Amino acid sequence: MNLEKIKEIKEGIITKEKFEKGVREGSIVVLKNLNDDEILGIGEGMLTKINANIGIGEGSDIEEELKKGKIAVKYGADTLMDLSISNFDDVRRKFLKSLDVPIGTVPIYQAYIEKQKDMDADYVLNVIEKNLKNGVSFATIHAGITKSIVGDIKKFGRRIPITSRGGALLAAWMLMNDSENPLYENFEYIAEMFKKYDACISLGDALRPACIADASDYAQFAELINLGKFVKIARKIGAKVIVEGPGHIPLNEIESNVKMAKKICDNAPLYTLGPLPTDIALGYDHIAAAIGSAVGAMHGVDFICYVTPEEHYSLPDIEGVKSGVIASKIAAHIADICKLNYTMPNENMTTARRNLNWAQIFKCGIDKNLKKPENLKNKKPCTMCGEYCALKITEKYFE
Amino acid sequence: MNLEKIKEIKEGIITKEKFEKGVREGSIVVLKNLNDDEILGIGEGMLTKINANIGIGEGSDIEEELKKGKIAVKYGADTLMDLSISNFDDVRRKFLKSLDVPIGTVPIYQAYIEKQKDMDADYVLNVIEKNLKNGVSFATIHAGITKSIVGDIKKFGRRIPITSRGGALLAAWMLMNDSENPLYENFEYIAEMFKKYDACISLGDALRPACIADASDYAQFAELINLGKFVKIARKIGAKVIVEGPGHIPLNEIESNVKMAKKICDNAPLYTLGPLPTDIALGYDHIAAAIGSAVGAMHGVDFICYVTPEEHYSLPDIEGVKSGVIASKIAAHIADICKLNYTMPNENMTTARRNLNWAQIFKCGIDKNLKKPENLKNKKPCTMCGEYCALKITEKYFE
Repeated sequence: MNLEKIKEIKEGIITKEKFEKGVREGSIVVLKNLNDDEILGIGEGMLTKINANIGIGEGSDIEEELKKGKIAVKYGADTLMDLSISNFDDVRRKFLKSLDVPIGTVPIYQAYIEKQKDMDADYVLNVIEKNLKNGVSFATIHAGITKSIVGDIKKFGRRIPITSRGGALLAAWMLMNDSENPLYENFEYIAEMFKKYDACISLGDALRPACIADASDYAQFAELINLGKFVKIARKIGAKVIVEGPGHIPLNEIESNVKMAKKICDNAPLYTLGPLPTDIALGYDHIAAAIGSAVGAMHGVDFICYVTPEEHYSLPDIEGVKSGVIASKIAAHIADICKLNYTMPNENMTTARRNLNWAQIFKCGIDKNLKKPENLKNKKPCTMCGEYCALKITEKYFE
Repeated sequence: MNLEKIKEIKEGIITKEKFEKGVREGSIVVLKNLNDDEILGIGEGMLTKINANIGIGEGSDIEEELKKGKIAVKYGADTLMDLSISNFDDVRRKFLKSLDVPIGTVPIYQAYIEKQKDMDADYVLNVIEKNLKNGVSFATIHAGITKSIVGDIKKFGRRIPITSRGGALLAAWMLMNDSENPLYENFEYIAEMFKKYDACISLGDALRPACIADASDYAQFAELINLGKFVKIARKIGAKVIVEGPGHIPLNEIESNVKMAKKICDNAPLYTLGPLPTDIALGYDHIAAAIGSAVGAMHGVDFICYVTPEEHYSLPDIEGVKSGVIASKIAAHIADICKLNYTMPNENMTTARRNLNWAQIFKCGIDKNLKKPENLKNKKPCTMCGEYCALKITEKYFE
């Protein structure tokens, strides 16, 4: 591996030795990328990375989703996941060909949707292998949800039993067929395939809480314990593995959730959807997720899945994808200031501000495409304070 | 005081006894309101409140700012602050007459801008009294910045010496006239006036850090120590008092900042601008502030000043005001789930979601004006998952 292609090594954020130790021990995984020669590392000591979900839902098409993927990358998504629910093979190949970041998928969608009740383990494994052969960098494997946990949910209840699409498909299949989860039963074989194709297993959290009331409950933790075992198995086989995390979690439970997940999963890189610290931010879930994921990443989350404003009620449009990516980037950077002392971007902004250098200020902002209002002239204050700008008033007194 | 007019008592969030004890001890303050008969309490055990800033900067007028004030109230601002830098008396009277929430001001703007170098203590005190007579509910008094601290900043340096407008005006005046801060020297007289007019002193943080690099520094804490003393003086006199807090603070320093401010200021209600846990969220500072203020409020901040997307480069427009208020409301609610176990709004949303009751889901969202897409029909999944909606797939299996 050419270590000079890793941003954190180039910028002195991590040493080569620490990086190599992390990769060896599994606290860092490297995602392969078919189209670019920058190497993406995720995990301890690395910058927090972000993923954007794209893919065909109802009423969107391949070109539209490709456009969303390109916008997501333009605004800083490090990876993309294809969550399509139709036209699987075409979409996946198109995305892999056209997008310059590591691509992830969720093969169980295709396996179930193509076969429904008649899906069997062979079919699932074949779909997984097809994904890996095509060159996906990572794929979600919901191996932790079992008949027994689903039975517990039926027995003990849960406000919203399952919100994960993959989890719901598997639970339905298990109940229809009175059979165990094929991903649980065939995990070693799956891990061997991932190893063969140099791809990373993303252990799915099929039972992530769907609401604050279900946060940190028996179902979530029962699955987590299974995921911890699968981390050990994957590492023994030599497959790369990361772990997906919740979900809806109140803000004051995020730290313990992150630390517990890292502990149970032997410090495997943690990949969270949010967490969302409230259920009611409808239309603004990118903001709720940014709050949860900044706190999560500060305490150890390595990889943030974006959430768009439209989460919970619609596929996002292009603008929603952009908003989701930017909110996640802000959260990731806020966390990186704390966990890596990565302050340089802030130092540069501070210098630009002190000099009222508007061109530079806009260059230092997180959104490189933000339009600078025309009235902003260098050395002149903005319309908020006009001539009573604090910086302007005091500049002659402080050197 | 008619305790039935207090939301938290009506809803059983706080008992009458705890509320009255808080008011007696100063951990809760009640803001008077000229135009409405709901009583607004801020402090320990109360819901987190939010303020929106309006007021005339460069190139905006009284009608435009009034419109912004009304939008802010519509989307949930509990108070408004008039930060105008011209036409002070007219704007203030108009706002007080036309807006139905407690109004705050910063009298030092008017005193300095009208007199500049020739401002003297009498003039400052007269302007303060004029504000109080007009009926403002609270006003910022930057009593904690002194000649000595400003001297230290000259001596020891600071990346951005002062970002607070009031602080900058006072520092410039002190340096021009080689005189002590008139708000510092006349604090007892000021507190007597606030008592007389039943208004609340908001102790300004003139030296709040303007960037991550200056966070939690000697200047910020030297001022804070003075504010702590002024809390004691105000309480002795019988004036209501709250304390303003930072500013730009890294996410992992917010908890200690909040706890220290509360301790030094004898548990007076804490009112923060953010904090902003990064300097680079230009164009999206409402999101950075939501992250910082959710964490701040979870650890004890009682009152959040909104930040708009345009912060740091422009007065906000109407859309910016709306975005700032909603982001702050989300942060406040996320904190209230943690500090008050205020989960009811989330419970209601969860029930609506479980039933795929879209009309109800949109009623439970934080933005009551969010438009429901027309394709959303009750009991039907949204376009994200279509027929593979996790809730839909599993509903028949879980009662």
